[in-house]
Amino acid sequence: MGLNALWIMVSAVLVILMQGGFILLESGSTRMKNAGHVAGKTIFTLGLCSLVYWAVGYGFTFGTDNAETTLSKFLGIGDFFFNPSIVADEGASYPSTIFFLFQLAFAAISLSIAWGGFAERAKLSSYLVFTVLFTAIIYPVVAHWIWGGGWLAKDGAQDYAGSTVVHLTGALAAFAATVLLKPRIGKFNKDGSANEILGHNQVYSALSVLLLWVGWFGFNAGSAVSVGEGFFGYVAFNTQLGAAGGAVAALLISWLVAGKADITSMLNGALAGLVAITASCAFVDPWAAVVIGLVAGILVVFSVKFFEKIKVDDPIYALSVHGVAGIWGTLANGIFATQTLAEQVGVGRGGLIDTGSWHQLWIQFESVVVCGAFVLAASFLILGVMKMIMGFRVTEEQEIIGLDLSEHGTYGYPEQMKKAQQNL
Amino acid sequence: MGLNALWIMVSAVLVILMQGGFILLESGSTRMKNAGHVAGKTIFTLGLCSLVYWAVGYGFTFGTDNAETTLSKFLGIGDFFFNPSIVADEGASYPSTIFFLFQLAFAAISLSIAWGGFAERAKLSSYLVFTVLFTAIIYPVVAHWIWGGGWLAKDGAQDYAGSTVVHLTGALAAFAATVLLKPRIGKFNKDGSANEILGHNQVYSALSVLLLWVGWFGFNAGSAVSVGEGFFGYVAFNTQLGAAGGAVAALLISWLVAGKADITSMLNGALAGLVAITASCAFVDPWAAVVIGLVAGILVVFSVKFFEKIKVDDPIYALSVHGVAGIWGTLANGIFATQTLAEQVGVGRGGLIDTGSWHQLWIQFESVVVCGAFVLAASFLILGVMKMIMGFRVTEEQEIIGLDLSEHGTYGYPEQMKKAQQNL
Amino acid sequence: MGLNALWIMVSAVLVILMQGGFILLESGSTRMKNAGHVAGKTIFTLGLCSLVYWAVGYGFTFGTDNAETTLSKFLGIGDFFFNPSIVADEGASYPSTIFFLFQLAFAAISLSIAWGGFAERAKLSSYLVFTVLFTAIIYPVVAHWIWGGGWLAKDGAQDYAGSTVVHLTGALAAFAATVLLKPRIGKFNKDGSANEILGHNQVYSALSVLLLWVGWFGFNAGSAVSVGEGFFGYVAFNTQLGAAGGAVAALLISWLVAGKADITSMLNGALAGLVAITASCAFVDPWAAVVIGLVAGILVVFSVKFFEKIKVDDPIYALSVHGVAGIWGTLANGIFATQTLAEQVGVGRGGLIDTGSWHQLWIQFESVVVCGAFVLAASFLILGVMKMIMGFRVTEEQEIIGLDLSEHGTYGYPEQMKKAQQNL
Repeated sequence: MGLNALWIMVSAVLVILMQGGFILLESGSTRMKNAGHVAGKTIFTLGLCSLVYWAVGYGFTFGTDNAETTLSKFLGIGDFFFNPSIVADEGASYPSTIFFLFQLAFAAISLSIAWGGFAERAKLSSYLVFTVLFTAIIYPVVAHWIWGGGWLAKDGAQDYAGSTVVHLTGALAAFAATVLLKPRIGKFNKDGSANEILGHNQVYSALSVLLLWVGWFGFNAGSAVSVGEGFFGYVAFNTQLGAAGGAVAALLISWLVAGKADITSMLNGALAGLVAITASCAFVDPWAAVVIGLVAGILVVFSVKFFEKIKVDDPIYALSVHGVAGIWGTLANGIFATQTLAEQVGVGRGGLIDTGSWHQLWIQFESVVVCGAFVLAASFLILGVMKMIMGFRVTEEQEIIGLDLSEHGTYGYPEQMKKAQQNL
Repeated sequence: MGLNALWIMVSAVLVILMQGGFILLESGSTRMKNAGHVAGKTIFTLGLCSLVYWAVGYGFTFGTDNAETTLSKFLGIGDFFFNPSIVADEGASYPSTIFFLFQLAFAAISLSIAWGGFAERAKLSSYLVFTVLFTAIIYPVVAHWIWGGGWLAKDGAQDYAGSTVVHLTGALAAFAATVLLKPRIGKFNKDGSANEILGHNQVYSALSVLLLWVGWFGFNAGSAVSVGEGFFGYVAFNTQLGAAGGAVAALLISWLVAGKADITSMLNGALAGLVAITASCAFVDPWAAVVIGLVAGILVVFSVKFFEKIKVDDPIYALSVHGVAGIWGTLANGIFATQTLAEQVGVGRGGLIDTGSWHQLWIQFESVVVCGAFVLAASFLILGVMKMIMGFRVTEEQEIIGLDLSEHGTYGYPEQMKKAQQNL
Repeated sequence: MGLNALWIMVSAVLVILMQGGFILLESGSTRMKNAGHVAGKTIFTLGLCSLVYWAVGYGFTFGTDNAETTLSKFLGIGDFFFNPSIVADEGASYPSTIFFLFQLAFAAISLSIAWGGFAERAKLSSYLVFTVLFTAIIYPVVAHWIWGGGWLAKDGAQDYAGSTVVHLTGALAAFAATVLLKPRIGKFNKDGSANEILGHNQVYSALSVLLLWVGWFGFNAGSAVSVGEGFFGYVAFNTQLGAAGGAVAALLISWLVAGKADITSMLNGALAGLVAITASCAFVDPWAAVVIGLVAGILVVFSVKFFEKIKVDDPIYALSVHGVAGIWGTLANGIFATQTLAEQVGVGRGGLIDTGSWHQLWIQFESVVVCGAFVLAASFLILGVMKMIMGFRVTEEQEIIGLDLSEHGTYGYPEQMKKAQQNL
């Protein structure tokens, strides 16, 4: 028990540290006039998410009061306003307090991914309301289906650490948001061509990727929720290979295709490798981890171009990094999972290459489709109603002066912005 | 032993990581012309504090050579120039080397809190001298009283991870410093009204809060100094709820009262929630952790206004975040502690709500008053003598050009400051 | 097994986090026009290094297929495209997956040190090629000699966590690079005097040192690769004292000698203390750890001046911090190691002071000389051939506009650089 408690605790801390990665990723990828807002709202939404998850989100995911009913296939009930035992229950393999923290950290990451679609134009109040509804309803439903003993779990869907549950869910909420908000002013020209709105600080972006990479060892290897015979080390090992593959492939592809080794593409590649390996890290051989990462790194470069082409504004690249790579990662299990490892984990079966059977790939496809459909429908519904009732986007004037001033009253960089204004 | 050693080691590392939070918090909350100084001095004072704590601070806190004497109620003696066993002593529940590191990390945090009162106008030499005296005398005395077996420990004072020992001590040293230094040039007008001197980088500030939040799991849950049955997880769980309550309450209050959702207030709220829950994290039910955090978040917003009103200049908000919330957190134990949890921890009794008795609240009040009085007296004495003998504040000219140039010879942001000067 | 697995895993994560320190250290120490390049390339080279180390680097270091041959004194063979057991082998004290991650993290640190010599003028392609060759050949050879059972290991060379293997190796590769690249434009005047090219952000630099300091607990104490009786705590304890000594000595020396308490010198001092104590942390008494740190802090200040005098351009101070302090740290073992601790670790003997014998100091000297000679020869050869075949340095024009634009097509700080240009 003690060993598991310790490892899950360390992992929870690492996953919460990933919020620091998101603070830097989002602010580095956006403009100086919005930097205080972008960075600060992460702390606020992390706080609010924690309270809501404690009150209801955890209970909807893992509650077992309705275990004997049909409803339990779709939603858990119980443990609201979670009041855990102060020490580990007799015979439990870890204290429920620590398991709660680990799961809360995941919910908060999924929410932070969703903010990618809100960036640089959503009203602060919409962050508040969506945090509540996403944490109370959208995330718990998907998490219950796959990890909480719901119907996809019973079908054998493999998603070790959340390529679908965390990343795809967040990315599709971001997609709904960005579609409903419409693109940022100046992103697309009247002729349909896109302008590059560069983020203001690539040092933040690079450091963010490193922090996320580091935190991912908690994210993936922590999902073993056990030290046992050391299998969590294998998960971490594959995680490193997947991330490495993504970074290398994206840089080389952007160098070959665009003629310039674009920093942003490469950073996206590392993250895409991490997202993709998240589902598979416990199910595949090392060579397959490398391949999954490489493919993710290539996919993300073209995906970014694709979303620009269809005029979807994706400031933090959430749709490509977490959405497309999340889908690829989930499907990859159906291709590369080995029977031996599926049995080690105890979920699903080996994939196409190892077993020659399309069975697992079908299950993976099903889980992408149904989870995706649910998240999209719920997000469009919730955000659409929010848009009607309270408004979703700041005014044009507010967007131009920046959300630091419009939503919070002061610049995040007061000295630098003042100088910038003086120079106009 | 191994499990405890590992957890305390991880916790010590997390608490040392909090210095990274202070580097960003302090530099983010101050101006560009002082950024290199503010950030750099943290590394220097961490180094000096380590040597002094090793030489004498640890011995004054935990030394037991005088255990049989009356002096031991007030100060420990022994273990100077600490030379520990290279492995854990037979039967010890952890190696003393790791316990030393953990305690040193706490002393260094308390010192970093004190720097809040020095910011943007104290001479570099005063950092040097005060590091020595604070680490050798002020902090060890309070830590001995409550944690080292001193007289408040014998009285049953509850301060699980240092709302009083670490936070209030640091904050009151900061108070003495800021009073003796007088406000920064330009902070208050002749008519007594205050000007806002904005910090230069809210991305730093937001990231700092996240780093501190993450490190606080080591701070609080590490204070269990044991893995045992997993009680440290409960401590971490309450810590998360307290922090969340503080962030949410502060944002909402500043939104309601001031009409603007001020980023700085919200960040202060998260920290105030963390400071307040620090004393109580092991003694209260989850709902009470939320309440303690919410109250701390509200208090901090009004406290900041209060200090401005009485013309005390508090650049990093140390007095409000660590002082006021530290007092609230310490008193909260006397209200919310449950008898069951007090027995689990083995310190003091249940509080007002659980037991109906004012006993524990009185003890908590006593410990705030006597520790506060000692720290204030010692800090005013030491800093007052320093002011007389060596001078405490830089010249007006030095303050205007900034401490990067005056104390260190170069700007921390040479390219940006040069441009700024050219634009004048 | 479980405890060791957990501690090495945590240590590996901490060492990978040190890459965040390097991102900030290198970008903070260089100019704004190169910031995106400097920060971003760390993620790319970390990815590529991971793949190469997995493919061949690990096998050349620890492979035992040739254990019975003479070649094994100089190089390991085996475990290429490392395909480890998914759990710990029966009777193993940790899973090989986690050991791999820990060792990979070290290789990546050594590589990041080498980049110090490339800064602000090397072509991106040279980073790609040198990552492959350094990770495949240079680093594995030295690591095999000292840690992989090679001939220096058999001689009893003491290098607990890599003052030689990691730091000196990286620094000498940096030396070869900076000599072959020649100084940056504007660094030296025609009369031979040096200009100070200030880094652009000391907040980054200070935070980088803190991140590196924190990560160093994994670096040094993780090198125990065991929890056992808690000896890893002793290693961490000495590490803290060494770092503290370095920071304090460097600040005071630069204050005394130059009249200004230079921030950069002090940060270098902390790092030099850490580098120096890296070899000795497990072999010396606490007082000696303080002395080793103090001496390193003094050495680094004068070393920086020395390299400027001989017109070697060392933008990140890698030669002084990792090279000179790495040599000092390795030699210090021969002076300060105690017989008791050498037996505890099981490598070599006590040093000059404890035993009166010059034996260990000679071994240490030998290991600096032969490792140094090999790394220098290999680096000059590889980089020299690269220079001839593909070119090593960007054009003068590219260097002046900055590597962000020349190598990647956009500024890392697009808003700030645009303003800067408008002001020209």
